[in-house]
Amino acid sequence: MHQEIERKFLVKGDFKKHTIKKYKIEQGFLSTVPERTVRVRIKDDKGFITIKGIGNNSGTTRFEWEKEISFKDAKNLLELCEPTVIKKRRYIIPTNNNLFFEVDEFFGKNKGLLLAEIELPSEDFKFEKPGWLGAEVTGQKKYYNSSISKNPFCNW
Amino acid sequence: MHQEIERKFLVKGDFKKHTIKKYKIEQGFLSTVPERTVRVRIKDDKGFITIKGIGNNSGTTRFEWEKEISFKDAKNLLELCEPTVIKKRRYIIPTNNNLFFEVDEFFGKNKGLLLAEIELPSEDFKFEKPGWLGAEVTGQKKYYNSSISKNPFCNW
Repeated sequence: MHQEIERKFLVKGDFKKHTIKKYKIEQGFLSTVPERTVRVRIKDDKGFITIKGIGNNSGTTRFEWEKEISFKDAKNLLELCEPTVIKKRRYIIPTNNNLFFEVDEFFGKNKGLLLAEIELPSEDFKFEKPGWLGAEVTGQKKYYNSSISKNPFCNW
Repeated sequence: MHQEIERKFLVKGDFKKHTIKKYKIEQGFLSTVPERTVRVRIKDDKGFITIKGIGNNSGTTRFEWEKEISFKDAKNLLELCEPTVIKKRRYIIPTNNNLFFEVDEFFGKNKGLLLAEIELPSEDFKFEKPGWLGAEVTGQKKYYNSSISKNPFCNW
């Protein structure tokens, strides 16, 4: 269990050429209650279960606990999840500060949505903002994956 | 992930003398939605996370997935759970069919409540009912631990 310090942004330009790695992600939620979200994720061929607590006021810091589970268990658990399961591709993009942006390109009912996240060592950590980074949406519930699964981008 | 076939009963007599093992259990729920309950449990010094699907019509059969986690993780996750965390002692009592009753004696806000459960190899499996076994309550939501945690025995 650790504290996750994270900021989230829209994406306004071409980021893909900076990618050093990408994954296919499929994920659903067993609970979308902000105080205790429970996520099931398949990342390429690996399964995970992740539990997050509520964020602080700014939405930057949340408790997070994650455990790897088998691909087969994750597939079965995804079937128990609330509709809709999210499908996205994640692009890993390094920064000059030895940090990484994770940019999610959503598919299905969320096609057209792009979100960039960066995990920081401290809340006030300064990092360089690349040209393709758009407006900050940290802490805006609409952009939580748990919200997106219930109210997808095609309905916005 | 397996299918759990289980029947649940009240307790009307002295069962303790038949006990072959007992545990201390502390458990909470990250989700009490019947389609996808997520339970965190500490059983003596071990931690577990358990996910159950909705029961069939009779309430006898439910999907169940369980994974052992560290005691420390379980302690931390219990703090994220919905109020109230359940505390109980579980007594294991063998039957003549090589099955086992698990009798739960609840504490705290559920003091006075006793529930016996038996896991069966098939839905129509016949088993001997000991004299201390009371009325069947299989499938009655009020007796689900997920319900008891929200609406404890002291309020009934």
